[in-house]
Amino acid sequence: MKWVGPIRVSGDAVGGTDEVSVPLATYETPLWPSVGRGARVSTLIEGGIRTVVVDERMSRSVLLEADDAATAYAAWLRITGSREELQAVVATTSRFARLIDLHSEIVGDLLFVRFELTTGDASGHNMVTLASERLMDHILATIPGVRYGSISGNYCIDKKPSAVNGILGRGKNVVTEILIPREIVERRLRTTAKRVETLNTRKNLLGSLLAGSIRSANAHYANMLLGFYLATGQDAANIVEGSQGVTRAEDRDGDLYFSCTLPNVIVGSVGNGKGLPEVEEALTRLGCREDREPGENARRLAVLAAASVLCGELSLLAAQTNPGELMRSHVVLERGESRGDRVQTPPA
Amino acid sequence: MKWVGPIRVSGDAVGGTDEVSVPLATYETPLWPSVGRGARVSTLIEGGIRTVVVDERMSRSVLLEADDAATAYAAWLRITGSREELQAVVATTSRFARLIDLHSEIVGDLLFVRFELTTGDASGHNMVTLASERLMDHILATIPGVRYGSISGNYCIDKKPSAVNGILGRGKNVVTEILIPREIVERRLRTTAKRVETLNTRKNLLGSLLAGSIRSANAHYANMLLGFYLATGQDAANIVEGSQGVTRAEDRDGDLYFSCTLPNVIVGSVGNGKGLPEVEEALTRLGCREDREPGENARRLAVLAAASVLCGELSLLAAQTNPGELMRSHVVLERGESRGDRVQTPPA
Amino acid sequence: MKWVGPIRVSGDAVGGTDEVSVPLATYETPLWPSVGRGARVSTLIEGGIRTVVVDERMSRSVLLEADDAATAYAAWLRITGSREELQAVVATTSRFARLIDLHSEIVGDLLFVRFELTTGDASGHNMVTLASERLMDHILATIPGVRYGSISGNYCIDKKPSAVNGILGRGKNVVTEILIPREIVERRLRTTAKRVETLNTRKNLLGSLLAGSIRSANAHYANMLLGFYLATGQDAANIVEGSQGVTRAEDRDGDLYFSCTLPNVIVGSVGNGKGLPEVEEALTRLGCREDREPGENARRLAVLAAASVLCGELSLLAAQTNPGELMRSHVVLERGESRGDRVQTPPA
Amino acid sequence: MKWVGPIRVSGDAVGGTDEVSVPLATYETPLWPSVGRGARVSTLIEGGIRTVVVDERMSRSVLLEADDAATAYAAWLRITGSREELQAVVATTSRFARLIDLHSEIVGDLLFVRFELTTGDASGHNMVTLASERLMDHILATIPGVRYGSISGNYCIDKKPSAVNGILGRGKNVVTEILIPREIVERRLRTTAKRVETLNTRKNLLGSLLAGSIRSANAHYANMLLGFYLATGQDAANIVEGSQGVTRAEDRDGDLYFSCTLPNVIVGSVGNGKGLPEVEEALTRLGCREDREPGENARRLAVLAAASVLCGELSLLAAQTNPGELMRSHVVLERGESRGDRVQTPPA
Repeated sequence: MKWVGPIRVSGDAVGGTDEVSVPLATYETPLWPSVGRGARVSTLIEGGIRTVVVDERMSRSVLLEADDAATAYAAWLRITGSREELQAVVATTSRFARLIDLHSEIVGDLLFVRFELTTGDASGHNMVTLASERLMDHILATIPGVRYGSISGNYCIDKKPSAVNGILGRGKNVVTEILIPREIVERRLRTTAKRVETLNTRKNLLGSLLAGSIRSANAHYANMLLGFYLATGQDAANIVEGSQGVTRAEDRDGDLYFSCTLPNVIVGSVGNGKGLPEVEEALTRLGCREDREPGENARRLAVLAAASVLCGELSLLAAQTNPGELMRSHVVLERGESRGDRVQTPPA
Repeated sequence: MKWVGPIRVSGDAVGGTDEVSVPLATYETPLWPSVGRGARVSTLIEGGIRTVVVDERMSRSVLLEADDAATAYAAWLRITGSREELQAVVATTSRFARLIDLHSEIVGDLLFVRFELTTGDASGHNMVTLASERLMDHILATIPGVRYGSISGNYCIDKKPSAVNGILGRGKNVVTEILIPREIVERRLRTTAKRVETLNTRKNLLGSLLAGSIRSANAHYANMLLGFYLATGQDAANIVEGSQGVTRAEDRDGDLYFSCTLPNVIVGSVGNGKGLPEVEEALTRLGCREDREPGENARRLAVLAAASVLCGELSLLAAQTNPGELMRSHVVLERGESRGDRVQTPPA
Repeated sequence: MKWVGPIRVSGDAVGGTDEVSVPLATYETPLWPSVGRGARVSTLIEGGIRTVVVDERMSRSVLLEADDAATAYAAWLRITGSREELQAVVATTSRFARLIDLHSEIVGDLLFVRFELTTGDASGHNMVTLASERLMDHILATIPGVRYGSISGNYCIDKKPSAVNGILGRGKNVVTEILIPREIVERRLRTTAKRVETLNTRKNLLGSLLAGSIRSANAHYANMLLGFYLATGQDAANIVEGSQGVTRAEDRDGDLYFSCTLPNVIVGSVGNGKGLPEVEEALTRLGCREDREPGENARRLAVLAAASVLCGELSLLAAQTNPGELMRSHVVLERGESRGDRVQTPPA
Repeated sequence: MKWVGPIRVSGDAVGGTDEVSVPLATYETPLWPSVGRGARVSTLIEGGIRTVVVDERMSRSVLLEADDAATAYAAWLRITGSREELQAVVATTSRFARLIDLHSEIVGDLLFVRFELTTGDASGHNMVTLASERLMDHILATIPGVRYGSISGNYCIDKKPSAVNGILGRGKNVVTEILIPREIVERRLRTTAKRVETLNTRKNLLGSLLAGSIRSANAHYANMLLGFYLATGQDAANIVEGSQGVTRAEDRDGDLYFSCTLPNVIVGSVGNGKGLPEVEEALTRLGCREDREPGENARRLAVLAAASVLCGELSLLAAQTNPGELMRSHVVLERGESRGDRVQTPPA
């Protein structure tokens, strides 16, 4: 584990503009200098990496059997018609849980109901599971013609790739962006905006498409998220959803517009794993253990995770525009001669 | 980190039948008893969890620009026509690397070439990157009309969800299966074969489909793989591909046929992270540091990872057939009153 | 073109229970006896094929460029906050168009807005395009910091496979189901409920998953939809979305529960192509040119399309449970000796 | 039905450079002038639309049950080891069918085998079905431990969206491209290369990705394919696979590089539906009924289909770069005042 940075980051979730170092736990040591190079770039630019949290929620989908499709549909109409009642049930399970939306799928006589909640500073897996159990009990007790199918119907969906988590939301949806002047692109990243744009279009958008990827166009978000999640006590299996996100790169008159959108950053500043001393220390140092409104610490954490992703993504893509740069820097690194911004992670 | 087991496992990769405990590193402690319950079941059955490794390879796709589509196609024909030559290039980069297949995509004037290699006991990311760099140099030097695009074109594809890695292969493709007699299903798993079959069809197959998942039908492979990968020094970001796999469950006259197919188990018994003392110890204890033919230690490791997955998957699905079981066991666990086979991970 | 049936069908959209023959235009003549066999089965069962329309809407997504991600997000908040205003804009474009929902995606500084409307008896492509154009004009005139990107941003999404059209809805979402007594399964379909269930799980759910299909688990919905769409003057390219749907088959104590869910039946009883005499006649004969509330004729049409799909799907799956049946019946058909329920379409 | 063109097209499949009008059958009449505009552009450029057929095959996947996974794997090894034997079986079914490749998926104790054949001038659905039936008979008779599952296991996959058909191939894989000088882009398409590039990246690549599309990045391939397939007697349900393809657009110093890659053009110049007089006439006029080597007529037909797609795609994208152009041209068209290249199809 190593602290990398500082990263300059701005946005409501960090209360304006801040400079923050981030902890990354990994066996793949080239990750550190790679993220480090992106971090240095961010500090050269006013506002650094700009961020917006455009959505947050945690979901659990229950599965119900109905007498027939018409009964399933009637049940669903009744469920959507009783949201206040359902919110009251949710409120009995946690003072932080709040039901914000409901979605369904009816397939023959099966009814999948996706409960979507905000969960304060927790990532919320357990909170939505408990709430869903109570909600299902309530539904089974009040709506005729439906029976228990499963507490989880995989329309949630947890730790598997999907389209639904991007479309309906799960975790924090964090958008990050930076506009890097031409001179910094050339001097610090040893490339040009045009070359990064072309590579991003061909590799991240087109190559991923050919691979049969789903809602995913990036080089290696999973690497940064894994390091960040492990260091901050998160359930790191959530990098599965986290790996689905979109990098954009555009040449804007020689400057580089670079953006990473991560629809599924799943983190909490409280909950399982957060009590370990090293985790507590990391969260404190990140400024995510402050006395704030519920949810604010977790949003800050999500934004810092996403900013770390942008740093590593930018650095790797820049390196891949140059033939041989990756392998050379690996060899350099292995010889213990790491010279900062030449050093990259393995190509993703 | 905790050792769980033993798991009874059979197949060529473990040299017949063996009983092996497995290490799982996780912040989600209910994972241990959950895998433990599945492990106990395996020990009650002759042959335990049967396994087959049906494929192994590591891939890297390079991206080439061509003068036009016809030139890209001509280049591809020439590449496929010179496999021996390419194999000679690969041989200069490592004595373990061997080129076993090539695939391409031509999209307009772009040519993506996917090199597929066996890589001995290493997971092989660095080995294929080095080989690909040399292969690309060779191609650029010998085939006219093509130019460097990228050392990685995301048709590899690394740490992102995809269809290509399942269809063309990446990592070890491990199939596991077990036939559990009715009595054990009822007594140890507190359910029936029919109920597990129904749940698997509706949740893992149908629910995942509704979620817009891709080549994925399981409850929580990522959880077990994360724990196993971290404990054995793997690059745990490979759980992204690992999370894509297929659980089958069938009621066979009251007995339960249960199978987990994991097309992308990406592990090595040598390489980055394997030199750490605790990792070395774990690999040794798993029997994956023996003096064997290249690749055999890694195959054994892959099979043990997959068997751990089956244990955890079986246990969770069984629990989800019973309303309330998951939450009850969580509460029990938090009170420190874990009583073995009632205790489950959070629903996935 | 040939009329097949009658099919017995029930549900609100057909005003109780009805028996209706359906027109299918195709070059693949085995389709007629195949659908015909399913139709005959439906007439033997009380209520025949039961149907529910669980959703209806037509969508168009516009693409807007914003100054930055924060501006895109602010614009989106303002758009969602002015739904009445937007509905007023929509109302100026058509007396049938009504805005029922809005969704967005923010990716860096781009904003995709998906307008979702009900469109009376029209399939609604042109209606939503006109409405979207006016809505975009309104947005551009009233919200600062956003600019025209495209009248269609492919988040609609039209005539391409997707997950979004299933999850957020496009066209009529029609659920159909039938419970077929064991005796009819055996005598008319020459199979058993168990064999159809097994085949459906392995072929439609598992096989489609392996193929990297997306939100699709069926044998050949596209065949029936093509025939029905051509015969009723629809834009038949909408079979692309139509091909994504889910067949369920379950053995219920020897009886066969069979269900086809079609989330994207895109049909209209008015609009382009509906004025042709043969189309007009077909719609009239189907009872879809009656003097009813707007939308009712189109819903009836959608339900009849979906019921036709169930007939053909049931027949083909039953045939595929028997080795050789398909090829034999093809040969029979080619010899002009078609004997009704033995004859099938080519395997899908 | 209307003939549009001529289109100038070049490549081996058309024997150099040719100018060919194409028939399009559709209810959506704006399609004709839209394709017509692209066609006119092609005639202004030397070589017009350049084409390459990079692959061709037709597939059918059978499903086999095995005693267990090890038996399934052993069977697969034996199948791949007896390709000459299998080719001999295929040869008994048709003088045009030739086995060119085999792929498998093993999932627990199930074995899916995908037979891939060339089929001369036929699209080949029936040919591969017959061959697969014989191959399965042969396998069941010669390999112990496997049983009939299904003549089609949906790993083929027919008329459903998938990744496998793009990755392993099904139908003709046709790449088309054209380089349009700046002046023609501006005068004929009323736009610039940069604007088309930006729109293509944001709408076709990014928007489709957000929609959860799979291996698809285009605006409306399905429209052109439907019209072409209906007019030439094809099974038009194959537009489902056809709708999956990739448009590339790049600004090359002000000129527009434009390319449509269609991995799954499924057409035949012989077979079902080809005997109808109007179809026969269309095929003859297209030059696809000549006395040539088997396969050549079908390849020519595929290339003409793909070139038609490029014409319509180019025209629509150009129109969508201009706010209001689509709707205006629709209104013009409806008034019967179509003025050629302003007129577009509905936005896709």
